[in-house]
Amino acid sequence: MTKEEFRRFGHELVDWVANYFDHIEELPVLSQIEPGSLKAQLPAAPPEQGERMERIISDIDRLIVPALTHWSHPSFFAYFATSTSGPGILGELLTAAFDNKAMLWRTSPASTELEEVALDWLRQMMGLDEGLFGIIYDTASVSSMHAIAAAREGVERRIREDGMSGRPDLPLLRLYVSEQAHSSIEKAVITLGLGQKGLRKIPTDDQFRMDPSALANAIDEDKANGFVPFCIVATVGTTSTSSIDPIPEIVSIGEQHAMWLHVDAAYAGSAAVVPELRHLLNGCDRADSLVVNPHKWLFTPFDLSVLYCRHMDLLRRAFSLVPEYLRTPEQEKVRSGSDYGIQLGRRFRALKLWMVIRYFGHEGLASRIREHCRLAQLFASWVEESPDWEIMAPYPLALVCFRACPDQPNGNESDRAVRLDELNEAVMHAVNNTGEALLSHTRLNDKLTLRLSIGNIRTTERHVRHVWELLNQELSRLM
Amino acid sequence: MTKEEFRRFGHELVDWVANYFDHIEELPVLSQIEPGSLKAQLPAAPPEQGERMERIISDIDRLIVPALTHWSHPSFFAYFATSTSGPGILGELLTAAFDNKAMLWRTSPASTELEEVALDWLRQMMGLDEGLFGIIYDTASVSSMHAIAAAREGVERRIREDGMSGRPDLPLLRLYVSEQAHSSIEKAVITLGLGQKGLRKIPTDDQFRMDPSALANAIDEDKANGFVPFCIVATVGTTSTSSIDPIPEIVSIGEQHAMWLHVDAAYAGSAAVVPELRHLLNGCDRADSLVVNPHKWLFTPFDLSVLYCRHMDLLRRAFSLVPEYLRTPEQEKVRSGSDYGIQLGRRFRALKLWMVIRYFGHEGLASRIREHCRLAQLFASWVEESPDWEIMAPYPLALVCFRACPDQPNGNESDRAVRLDELNEAVMHAVNNTGEALLSHTRLNDKLTLRLSIGNIRTTERHVRHVWELLNQELSRLM
Repeated sequence: MTKEEFRRFGHELVDWVANYFDHIEELPVLSQIEPGSLKAQLPAAPPEQGERMERIISDIDRLIVPALTHWSHPSFFAYFATSTSGPGILGELLTAAFDNKAMLWRTSPASTELEEVALDWLRQMMGLDEGLFGIIYDTASVSSMHAIAAAREGVERRIREDGMSGRPDLPLLRLYVSEQAHSSIEKAVITLGLGQKGLRKIPTDDQFRMDPSALANAIDEDKANGFVPFCIVATVGTTSTSSIDPIPEIVSIGEQHAMWLHVDAAYAGSAAVVPELRHLLNGCDRADSLVVNPHKWLFTPFDLSVLYCRHMDLLRRAFSLVPEYLRTPEQEKVRSGSDYGIQLGRRFRALKLWMVIRYFGHEGLASRIREHCRLAQLFASWVEESPDWEIMAPYPLALVCFRACPDQPNGNESDRAVRLDELNEAVMHAVNNTGEALLSHTRLNDKLTLRLSIGNIRTTERHVRHVWELLNQELSRLM
Repeated sequence: MTKEEFRRFGHELVDWVANYFDHIEELPVLSQIEPGSLKAQLPAAPPEQGERMERIISDIDRLIVPALTHWSHPSFFAYFATSTSGPGILGELLTAAFDNKAMLWRTSPASTELEEVALDWLRQMMGLDEGLFGIIYDTASVSSMHAIAAAREGVERRIREDGMSGRPDLPLLRLYVSEQAHSSIEKAVITLGLGQKGLRKIPTDDQFRMDPSALANAIDEDKANGFVPFCIVATVGTTSTSSIDPIPEIVSIGEQHAMWLHVDAAYAGSAAVVPELRHLLNGCDRADSLVVNPHKWLFTPFDLSVLYCRHMDLLRRAFSLVPEYLRTPEQEKVRSGSDYGIQLGRRFRALKLWMVIRYFGHEGLASRIREHCRLAQLFASWVEESPDWEIMAPYPLALVCFRACPDQPNGNESDRAVRLDELNEAVMHAVNNTGEALLSHTRLNDKLTLRLSIGNIRTTERHVRHVWELLNQELSRLM
């Protein structure tokens, strides 16, 4: 592409993006296409000759945009609502142009050193102690997998060298999570060869927090059976409800048994940049590792997940492999990202995070997260005041779990439970199908529960009021 | 960031990028900064208040650019030279704006369906058969890890459920690669808990290709010892020399033992889009999986690695986990990317690949790769004609392995070997330190060998001639 073409289409697409954000509320949040319909509109074979950019851009308008679910829509309240931002998007433009593979320090000194600086800034903003060193991965699933791999290496059973198959000498290794932990932990355990049997789920209390005494008992029981408890994963901000495991109690149990404590704060960790919410991470000064995702709630485009780790030596021992073709004269004096993970090539992700932190500043980031929490509390207050709805879990952050529970003619208790599940699922789909807002769901105490998550930089009180109206309107219609 | 600000700084940065590419040859390819010097110039604490974009952009010019190694420089000949491109960069701009997390079909129908279409286009261009279904991961390391995990699942020993620790019933599982295979395979094996002992390296012939009879013997021997040979990883285009393992012979051995055959074509797979180079993948119609990286040699910005797999059911069985909060009404009718891997969130990477294929067309891609191969052959011819240099390995693609071997006063043979290693390392660093070109090295038959890799879209004959002049000039100076 010539310089002139790049300028011309670059300017056109920058305007296109500005316009996209300006008109995003006119688009349905959830894509309305039928499965397979985009594929059916695209040629089955690749073009033999190159095509003009004008045609490609016009197809983006005509075919791609209708097939998008608009995560950047201010009424996206599903899953964990997330947010890209202007400085982050422009950072990605530069990253794609530099196209650095930051595998070794020398292949991208800027990436290596900016990563160190930006992650230390984030650590300070979150109030974490200096003993935690940060490294960027793509997703929390991958960050947590690396933490658990380091913990596995820490059991000192020559797993890197000898593996775990053909090892009659090796007892069952076990990791502990709460029943509310994210599925990524189970996936990581499966991937690492520890198996689902290597993961034990600990019951939670009535606020969906891990029960420390159940954890202690489970570890004792497993030890008595000859198993090797090696890791606990506690969650600050679970996916279903944003519940917060009691880290200080859990960390004490981990210390007593010399186990690795990993904290999954992928969602809620960002909230700690708000000074009055720092207490969420109480106890993490004694954790071995912690994951937080700036791509979730820190206005940084996907993907950028951060693992803070207190034992970089173990992480390195678990993953470092330097073949001759990657040897460099300076290798003893510098850090190379690929020594700390499965991926050799690494994108220059630190650039966008550094730009986001500088553009917003600590106060700018904190004030936006604080406002999201205020909006969630406001929504929860409406739910609490209404006779037709009920709160299903505490809402310490910007996620509200609730459901419709209108008065209905008496009936059999289990019939009523089924009817309420069906009603809530129907309300959710009805709201989602309006295209004006998007919610998601979970199950709590075996009850279908709606989730409203606020995390988009463009979400204002007006959007929250509107989804509340939609919910009530669809509930009335369905009753 | 307001719409006006986004337009203003977006236009400014598009011009900045156009200008960067226009003047890139004035920049040193290898960053000239000292370790730690970027970090030392950045504030130790994050800004409390937001900063102006003008200041951030000026710091990118002043601090970041000098700390970059310029992978987009046409005289970047190190590692595998790669290439971003205009349509790919603009695709990344859109991806960052859409900020889709393509974990489920509904969270990004466009990503799911465009991925299927673009990867089928690529499959056709590479001449692969329809039985291979594609899926995008971030890097080849991760693609290969997934292939090996599916192979591990295929041994039917309940590894997903029961894991590999505490399993006296489980024999040693073994995977086979050549001595020239990429380090990522060993890392994947370590990560998956199979250990370095679970990987057996097979000797190569005088052209650095896996020796099939040594492979067959190793498998027989391991079976006799009660081990379970479960996977072979063959390479088309090894990292040191771009050697091509004899796939047809290897695939027959794999079939005989019902083992999974994974082909690492991360680099050379792209070359198969050139019709006369399709034969490189002969035999792959019988492979179980194959990885190719469009971010290496298909003008697509990093990261985008493709795994083609013949057993998506096994990959899904190895990784699928659908908690309640990810259940959707359409899940039985659609594919969700997160069912096939460790990562839950997935970037909308297909967009840039689709834009690249459309912009260049099959012929445009093939002609550029063909030209890179021509330039490499040309460079190799100069080496072969010169008395001061020698070719160290066959050069079937766009990578040339060579070294300086000037006539020198006779001496002890082992002294001469050491002197030649030192001389070649010195020549490489001297060339790299000019900032005018970047080479890397490997060791072949225990001899330090220089590598010249051509893969950048801006590289022309002029750049190849210039690095040849630099090499000769630095050799003369050092003699």
